[in-house]
Amino acid sequence: MNFVVIGGDAAGMSAASRAKRTQPDMNVTVLEKTQDVSYSACGMPYNIADPKRDIEELVVRRAEVFREKQDIDLLTGHLVETILPAEQKVVGTTADGQGFSFQYDKLLIASGASPVKPDVPGIDLPGVVALKSLADGRRIKQFIKENQVRRVVVVGMGYIALEMCEAFHALGLAVTMLKPNPDLLPWMERSSAQVVQEELESRSVELMFGQRLKAVEKGAGGLRAVCDNESIDTDMVLIAMGVYPNSGIARDAGIDLSLGDSIAVNKKLETSDQNIYAAGDCADAVHVVTGEKAWVPLALRANRAGWAVADNVCGREKELPGIAGTAVFKVFDLEVARTGLDMREAAAAGFEPAGVIIKTRSKAHAHPGNTVIHVHMVGDVKSGRLLGVQMVGKEGVAHRINAPAVALHNQMTVAAFGESDLAYAPPFGPTWDPLLTTANQLIKKL
Amino acid sequence: MNFVVIGGDAAGMSAASRAKRTQPDMNVTVLEKTQDVSYSACGMPYNIADPKRDIEELVVRRAEVFREKQDIDLLTGHLVETILPAEQKVVGTTADGQGFSFQYDKLLIASGASPVKPDVPGIDLPGVVALKSLADGRRIKQFIKENQVRRVVVVGMGYIALEMCEAFHALGLAVTMLKPNPDLLPWMERSSAQVVQEELESRSVELMFGQRLKAVEKGAGGLRAVCDNESIDTDMVLIAMGVYPNSGIARDAGIDLSLGDSIAVNKKLETSDQNIYAAGDCADAVHVVTGEKAWVPLALRANRAGWAVADNVCGREKELPGIAGTAVFKVFDLEVARTGLDMREAAAAGFEPAGVIIKTRSKAHAHPGNTVIHVHMVGDVKSGRLLGVQMVGKEGVAHRINAPAVALHNQMTVAAFGESDLAYAPPFGPTWDPLLTTANQLIKKL
Repeated sequence: MNFVVIGGDAAGMSAASRAKRTQPDMNVTVLEKTQDVSYSACGMPYNIADPKRDIEELVVRRAEVFREKQDIDLLTGHLVETILPAEQKVVGTTADGQGFSFQYDKLLIASGASPVKPDVPGIDLPGVVALKSLADGRRIKQFIKENQVRRVVVVGMGYIALEMCEAFHALGLAVTMLKPNPDLLPWMERSSAQVVQEELESRSVELMFGQRLKAVEKGAGGLRAVCDNESIDTDMVLIAMGVYPNSGIARDAGIDLSLGDSIAVNKKLETSDQNIYAAGDCADAVHVVTGEKAWVPLALRANRAGWAVADNVCGREKELPGIAGTAVFKVFDLEVARTGLDMREAAAAGFEPAGVIIKTRSKAHAHPGNTVIHVHMVGDVKSGRLLGVQMVGKEGVAHRINAPAVALHNQMTVAAFGESDLAYAPPFGPTWDPLLTTANQLIKKL
Repeated sequence: MNFVVIGGDAAGMSAASRAKRTQPDMNVTVLEKTQDVSYSACGMPYNIADPKRDIEELVVRRAEVFREKQDIDLLTGHLVETILPAEQKVVGTTADGQGFSFQYDKLLIASGASPVKPDVPGIDLPGVVALKSLADGRRIKQFIKENQVRRVVVVGMGYIALEMCEAFHALGLAVTMLKPNPDLLPWMERSSAQVVQEELESRSVELMFGQRLKAVEKGAGGLRAVCDNESIDTDMVLIAMGVYPNSGIARDAGIDLSLGDSIAVNKKLETSDQNIYAAGDCADAVHVVTGEKAWVPLALRANRAGWAVADNVCGREKELPGIAGTAVFKVFDLEVARTGLDMREAAAAGFEPAGVIIKTRSKAHAHPGNTVIHVHMVGDVKSGRLLGVQMVGKEGVAHRINAPAVALHNQMTVAAFGESDLAYAPPFGPTWDPLLTTANQLIKKL
């Protein structure tokens, strides 16, 4: 059996490794367009924040290990350009310009996602960067090292933008963030988003809303980011406007696409072609709350979907239940987390959402070192179901979100979730956990 | 309607307040034997650790507030001695020796628990203390303040013993802990318990296993704790051997008792007498994993059961699903948490338990500040169900335990729990959360 994998990061290498482990006699070939495989992409902002750390630390397993220890035919510098489903073949070009083609019995498209880049003049100037691949990370570290970078403009205010904002701040750079939308983190309940905004402003991060990048120009001793009605002198521009799925080769091969042009897969990660799977940032998923398709390109799903593909390729039938939309990020002293749906998403999915916002404490009454935790919880008036939770606070947020995430997988009602036996000790929260207090309030609206 | 409550702490005051709020015309009488109501008992070790903190800080709401603002007839210094179910009456004696009696339509026994004290000579000497009531906390603070306390013997090694060990250590006292059993935290998987033991020993806490307290004597300039084959000179002895339910008045009134002499209640918190409820540390509960009775006297259940009693007394029928046995404590730099059953409990409950122990990391690959998290997970070979989780680590343990706690409420299989969409960001854990990694390993044994 020839199992060919396009893409050698989270989903691709997870699938390749697990397939080879399960069936050592399988021919497993991974075609990776870059020179890097199996690295912690999510760790890049934290590595960039520290000039003393080598970016290569983020490599979890080097290509040689996959080749020599695991007998995976891992080919870097191999860009797949065309999938020929009728012939069960992929064709492409290597980094040094050689053509190649591989026959497959089963194919996994794990081609990931690419940063959205605005089509504006100057977007290719040196110092205009994005962050997705390890090569991007290297380029940013090197640019900062080799240039007198004191100011940076970050275009976008999502997870990556905020994590990079913190990294740049740690390096002593003055950070200006801009976006066309008037709201920071529009999926967040407004008073909680305000907490994040105040944290950013307390670090002297300049936030410019309602501004679209129109051009990057060479300015006096650096760059100039030209926006709708502002021009900002800067030394570097980070484009962090989100990502789009690398689904072009799938579309060209006649494979069905889905939300945001992600590749449509079923619970077994099969695409519309019976010999082709897709997994990772390029593929969609089912949302466990709505039962509908969703596209949430995050690392855990990529790894898990890679494993599931391997199981299916090896004949161990495996279906994934889907995602709950759980995510967490850190920005300066704040932990920000979510799971499930926000009010707008819940309404769009046909629920009748009700929400409450509770400000509660991270530790027991009178316990030293108390900080505020903001919890926003959404339930469905018709069914009583828990639909989603958002939290912001200085501590006790990141792992706390997992309890409602598990509740969402089980379609729990808010009332049932509110009766969960959660842990209590004074250093870790009030007797009634913030989540329980919020559920107790939300029940009254359902 | 006369609603009488015996006991004015967590369960009792929760019930009284909620009943009065729901039905303002109800006569709500609380009979509390001490002078203290509604305080954070669990906060006492942390308060005692800091001589600058006033123990009265732990009072959440003072008796006058209940009386004046909430119109609850709250009587402190009222010890109920007898329940007369046929006459629907309680009788007792006040702190100043006056007899009293109250008629009830509905009665709640929320009489709590008392520290187990060994019946040995010298147990009543000054400097021999226990910690359950706020009066106990006051007494300990005062004793330390007024005496040259440099050494303390802690009898027992449970949650309270360990929290107080940390408090005494913070006060600069030399701590010796002793217990008859050869194992620290016998419910813990041994390698995890060893982590706790090493943490204690790294703080120069002396641990003496296989030692039973035989007597406390007056020694040269202090006390002497006489054990099986050791005598320890000390300035203070803390008895922390666990608690027993204050169920004597219930038993004497012919009410059915349950595990460990706790008062048997159904999911509505009704005792065997149709007019009498019980809640808090004196009452039992159903364990959601076994479906059998359990006695786990902890604060959240007490508060929640108090509320449920109020709802039932007010005619809003309310059943509680039960407890998952979730608990957490901090000891020095460690967080220790559990939910559900350990291997022994699982076998005793008729499951066919299999367990795995995983050492994993608190942060992503190569992220600075990584520490070790030890996860022990138990599943049932026959059904594949998740039965319990234990965790130990320096961070990311306390709130992480709540995800499997919610899973237990939903009778999830280990496989389904292992497919949960848990949060990931590099500062908070590996891509595969420690719980997921452990579930992935445990599945192989099921």
